[in-house]
Amino acid sequence: MIKVGVVGGTGYTGVELLRLLSSHPKAEITVVTSRSDVGVQVGQLYPNLRGYIDLEFKMPELDTLSDCDLVFFATPNGTAMTMAKKLLQRGVKIIDLAADFRLKDPQLWEQWYGQPHVCPELLQEAQYGLPEINRTNLRNAKLIACPGCYPTAVQLGFLPLMESALIDPIHLFADVKSGVSGAGRKAQITSLMAESGESIKAYSVSGHRHQPEICQGLEAVAGRPVQMIFVPHLVPMIRGIHATLYARLNNVSAEKIQQIFETRYASEAFVDVLPEGSHPDTHNVKGSNRCQLAIHYLQDSGTVVVLSVIDNLVKGAAGQAVQNMNLMFDIDETTGLNAVALYP
Amino acid sequence: MIKVGVVGGTGYTGVELLRLLSSHPKAEITVVTSRSDVGVQVGQLYPNLRGYIDLEFKMPELDTLSDCDLVFFATPNGTAMTMAKKLLQRGVKIIDLAADFRLKDPQLWEQWYGQPHVCPELLQEAQYGLPEINRTNLRNAKLIACPGCYPTAVQLGFLPLMESALIDPIHLFADVKSGVSGAGRKAQITSLMAESGESIKAYSVSGHRHQPEICQGLEAVAGRPVQMIFVPHLVPMIRGIHATLYARLNNVSAEKIQQIFETRYASEAFVDVLPEGSHPDTHNVKGSNRCQLAIHYLQDSGTVVVLSVIDNLVKGAAGQAVQNMNLMFDIDETTGLNAVALYP
Amino acid sequence: MIKVGVVGGTGYTGVELLRLLSSHPKAEITVVTSRSDVGVQVGQLYPNLRGYIDLEFKMPELDTLSDCDLVFFATPNGTAMTMAKKLLQRGVKIIDLAADFRLKDPQLWEQWYGQPHVCPELLQEAQYGLPEINRTNLRNAKLIACPGCYPTAVQLGFLPLMESALIDPIHLFADVKSGVSGAGRKAQITSLMAESGESIKAYSVSGHRHQPEICQGLEAVAGRPVQMIFVPHLVPMIRGIHATLYARLNNVSAEKIQQIFETRYASEAFVDVLPEGSHPDTHNVKGSNRCQLAIHYLQDSGTVVVLSVIDNLVKGAAGQAVQNMNLMFDIDETTGLNAVALYP
Amino acid sequence: MIKVGVVGGTGYTGVELLRLLSSHPKAEITVVTSRSDVGVQVGQLYPNLRGYIDLEFKMPELDTLSDCDLVFFATPNGTAMTMAKKLLQRGVKIIDLAADFRLKDPQLWEQWYGQPHVCPELLQEAQYGLPEINRTNLRNAKLIACPGCYPTAVQLGFLPLMESALIDPIHLFADVKSGVSGAGRKAQITSLMAESGESIKAYSVSGHRHQPEICQGLEAVAGRPVQMIFVPHLVPMIRGIHATLYARLNNVSAEKIQQIFETRYASEAFVDVLPEGSHPDTHNVKGSNRCQLAIHYLQDSGTVVVLSVIDNLVKGAAGQAVQNMNLMFDIDETTGLNAVALYP
Repeated sequence: MIKVGVVGGTGYTGVELLRLLSSHPKAEITVVTSRSDVGVQVGQLYPNLRGYIDLEFKMPELDTLSDCDLVFFATPNGTAMTMAKKLLQRGVKIIDLAADFRLKDPQLWEQWYGQPHVCPELLQEAQYGLPEINRTNLRNAKLIACPGCYPTAVQLGFLPLMESALIDPIHLFADVKSGVSGAGRKAQITSLMAESGESIKAYSVSGHRHQPEICQGLEAVAGRPVQMIFVPHLVPMIRGIHATLYARLNNVSAEKIQQIFETRYASEAFVDVLPEGSHPDTHNVKGSNRCQLAIHYLQDSGTVVVLSVIDNLVKGAAGQAVQNMNLMFDIDETTGLNAVALYP
Repeated sequence: MIKVGVVGGTGYTGVELLRLLSSHPKAEITVVTSRSDVGVQVGQLYPNLRGYIDLEFKMPELDTLSDCDLVFFATPNGTAMTMAKKLLQRGVKIIDLAADFRLKDPQLWEQWYGQPHVCPELLQEAQYGLPEINRTNLRNAKLIACPGCYPTAVQLGFLPLMESALIDPIHLFADVKSGVSGAGRKAQITSLMAESGESIKAYSVSGHRHQPEICQGLEAVAGRPVQMIFVPHLVPMIRGIHATLYARLNNVSAEKIQQIFETRYASEAFVDVLPEGSHPDTHNVKGSNRCQLAIHYLQDSGTVVVLSVIDNLVKGAAGQAVQNMNLMFDIDETTGLNAVALYP
Repeated sequence: MIKVGVVGGTGYTGVELLRLLSSHPKAEITVVTSRSDVGVQVGQLYPNLRGYIDLEFKMPELDTLSDCDLVFFATPNGTAMTMAKKLLQRGVKIIDLAADFRLKDPQLWEQWYGQPHVCPELLQEAQYGLPEINRTNLRNAKLIACPGCYPTAVQLGFLPLMESALIDPIHLFADVKSGVSGAGRKAQITSLMAESGESIKAYSVSGHRHQPEICQGLEAVAGRPVQMIFVPHLVPMIRGIHATLYARLNNVSAEKIQQIFETRYASEAFVDVLPEGSHPDTHNVKGSNRCQLAIHYLQDSGTVVVLSVIDNLVKGAAGQAVQNMNLMFDIDETTGLNAVALYP
Repeated sequence: MIKVGVVGGTGYTGVELLRLLSSHPKAEITVVTSRSDVGVQVGQLYPNLRGYIDLEFKMPELDTLSDCDLVFFATPNGTAMTMAKKLLQRGVKIIDLAADFRLKDPQLWEQWYGQPHVCPELLQEAQYGLPEINRTNLRNAKLIACPGCYPTAVQLGFLPLMESALIDPIHLFADVKSGVSGAGRKAQITSLMAESGESIKAYSVSGHRHQPEICQGLEAVAGRPVQMIFVPHLVPMIRGIHATLYARLNNVSAEKIQQIFETRYASEAFVDVLPEGSHPDTHNVKGSNRCQLAIHYLQDSGTVVVLSVIDNLVKGAAGQAVQNMNLMFDIDETTGLNAVALYP
């Protein structure tokens, strides 16, 4: 059994990670930390976990975590980077669900996250945890930066087109929509049900942190600069991301594009390319680690529209983290991740 | 025009009051206060009010408010009682949408609201603002305590039965359900959409502040002690209260009970008794000042079930406050309150 | 008083029209029709209208409707065109909330609506009821084609840019999102709450009827062909449309664009341009006849992003129809349409 | 492997059953039927099941089903009773998720279900599938009637009080609330999101089919007549039932009652008694087979309030059916049912 610690177990990605790990046959949760809830039973704070995890929240301290084989950070941005180096020195592997190790350029990181990076020397070593692109490196990784929720949905949608060099990478549009759990378990007015229920709004139109992350990933694939308009929206539902992706391309038939996607993802357990003409619903991936994709080619304008849906807390966070763990410890990649989505 | 001040204009009852007053033909909002938003335009904080109210939030100070004919307090419990006396001395009338003057007994108030009452001498003078019971006194009132949202729905539902002495007042059950706006515009975890969406829960089963308020009201009508089990629930919707009321009664036909309700409320503009066999939906009163009632008599057990729905922010708060203002200033009671509910 | 008939009063646009007309000071509803509910009281079917409209649903017959000054058709596509000619001959004016008279080209109409147009001779006479573009013609109109919900939100968002010839009209993207009331009051699986709640999906990506309508409108303004990618989405809320509009433009500052919008709509009662940097929420226009717009200019890519929100049932249907009636009968355009949006 | 057939696999209980069975280690789905979707792949109709179930819907015919060890009926009421006898004769076991075999009295059945019972001779043989009451008989059963959703939540809440004879069984109140999936996957106006979203209503106050079922169960335990007022409500959420149960009892302490519940359910895997003072949320059982209970004792009135929550599609239908299958085939009762609830 892999001995696992979870730092920051009280946010939505943390509790989702606990849910997934509690039924993982090869992992054993040995430490769960939360500064604000030290001494409280996990099941007291999260009644859905009663009887599944018999642990109290502890302080996130180095000594407590050093016995783990692996520590997940489900913490706010800027936390993992303060502990990563010492844990690695003690032989503990790390998967960070926050953004600390996602960008390779510390300057860019500081610009978008508003604080200096205290551990830039690990940025190159850190592996970007999108298995569909980076599987080989993840198998030997000691430090994995789990992708953001939007970046997962958007990159999986653009990837086959990028790899096949079919699209013009400077005319990309990503109009993305997220449920409110993406804003985290934070006491803020804008996340109240009376504010975010029964209404939709765009936010951060002038710039969002996930944009440079996506562009970094797509540029690595394309081998040249990518320009993408990225507009996120808050949708009145709890879980789910729907990315509507637009790109220009020419001289390709709809069948050909469909085939490119199907071929690219044929052996991917967690990417499901729907038949031509489909319109994926986020409820069909709710609670599962799946990304469902549908491709539409608009002949008249030479535009491809890719629809990409995930559960932001699973494939967009905790599920992908477990998938990374499986790779890291050489377990079957799908272990503990086979739950069917909860519909309706 | 009645010159009106609104103290605490940034909560949900406050902004709803501003909505209703902004189109009231006989009232003019001259002051809106909010400690936390001094200097901010009302329309900046609440874009639905852009162009309707051209005022900045001010500090809630006595001198600022003294020019008003009437001041509404849409503040947390415990605020109105600190300013009421001085405003009244300056000839300003007061309608408090909070609980400060709802209970007649200062001891009981302290017990339920967890603080000493600083202005007990006004408790007898304050009139309870449920026009359907207390209309005459409201016409001459200087200080009105606007009822709570649950107390409005519950009292209107039990009232005809109480007055006709048909029910046994010590076997009452009120199983009540409220939308999340009832919890106010407060940054708290439990009100997040990810917490309160797609889920229902009971709360405060061991005791809720609205229970003594209801019992005080019903006892005044019944002329004897009332015992009522009161269990509130939080429902995943924004607006609306549904009270399901149970009482024992015998030797009465269903037709008779229906008739008692219809007769009692025949001349009430804001209480609508639905035909026998109806099941009111809260969406049919959303945004309106109406209470819709349906009565079911279960022959076998001699139980009457009354279903009572209101919009908690209108008939349960701001609309009732405007209704009280109309009475206070001898205007037609329905002025500014004729909006049809927003369905769907 | 304008004597008004409403044909098809039982869909969501119909009942919303009844809500607005019931409090309109210059209009009197004299006939409401519904084939399926003949003889039923309006208030029985729609309890929110109890006491506001004292009429029974009738059969939609010519003689019944001939006494009206104006007949609204809130019917499925293809109904108004069967009665329009005869009603006009009898001197009755018509406002159609469906699509029968929106497209000028009968061939195009047949292609998108799947049936032959039985009254093509009226297509040129019909005026397109978007007052912000076509006000003058609407004042003398006898037959008005009320725009679709998406077309209203999208055209109002693109209009100032089109008129100022600032954008390249062949690189337009409209990623639009609608609440479920847009699908109408039809018993169909996809509109069930268990299907459309807590989930978002795109639909009709390969082509949607509102696209040719929008292009026809924008081309009339631009004076040249327009190409627009149009992708609609179904959002888990009841009312509201959010259009996210993208266009290329160069050599313009953000301030200049903001100013163009503000100037263009300065005298429009129902178009509200928010300050730079805003992100409109659909709940701020819920129940009101307003369109709120926000403009973002993304310097790096020379892209303007316009955010446009309306209530699909009001400015997107019934409210706009009443606005058209006001123009048609030379009443102040805002009469009966001043309700503030219902927030929260 | 148990060879399993699912008749009526296209309703919400059917698809939930497929979800649970698809990951059950001891069961293999060999037939899925649906009259309306013959020839369609399961994963085409239900994209959440793509890749998990590789079957086409077939016609529900005797020969097709005879090879199964067990057939589940997830059909409308009145279907299972037409096939049950013949299947049993061929040695196929049956679990009916509908109501056909829930009531022991055929007269009562006809009265509530509006049709004659065509197979009354099996009513006595059928075992009522509430394992917490009837486990022993279920182990040898050939025909199991799976309880209704409300009956599960209500009986589990009242059971310990009944067994301990602590309460007066003729003064019971059950005020119950259900999400909209309880109404099934039927194209009907009342289940539209625009109708049932953002609103709560009671229904069937004059009488609901689950009432006689509950009373039958409680009377069997109590050994004497039970009288229960039962009022169901429709809540704007997809999954979940919250039962608020009221009973009179005297001379007992809160601690004692809590202890009775804890003792009664100590060895039950799927009934979780929360600590005193708790208020269960339906989201903490969403997707799981658990019932969570909380008990409140109101000293003043001698009233016990039991709060009982389940997921109507799992413990209230498909999960309980699988639990019954496990018992029937002598597998560990929790097999395939250990999923943690999906929160948030």
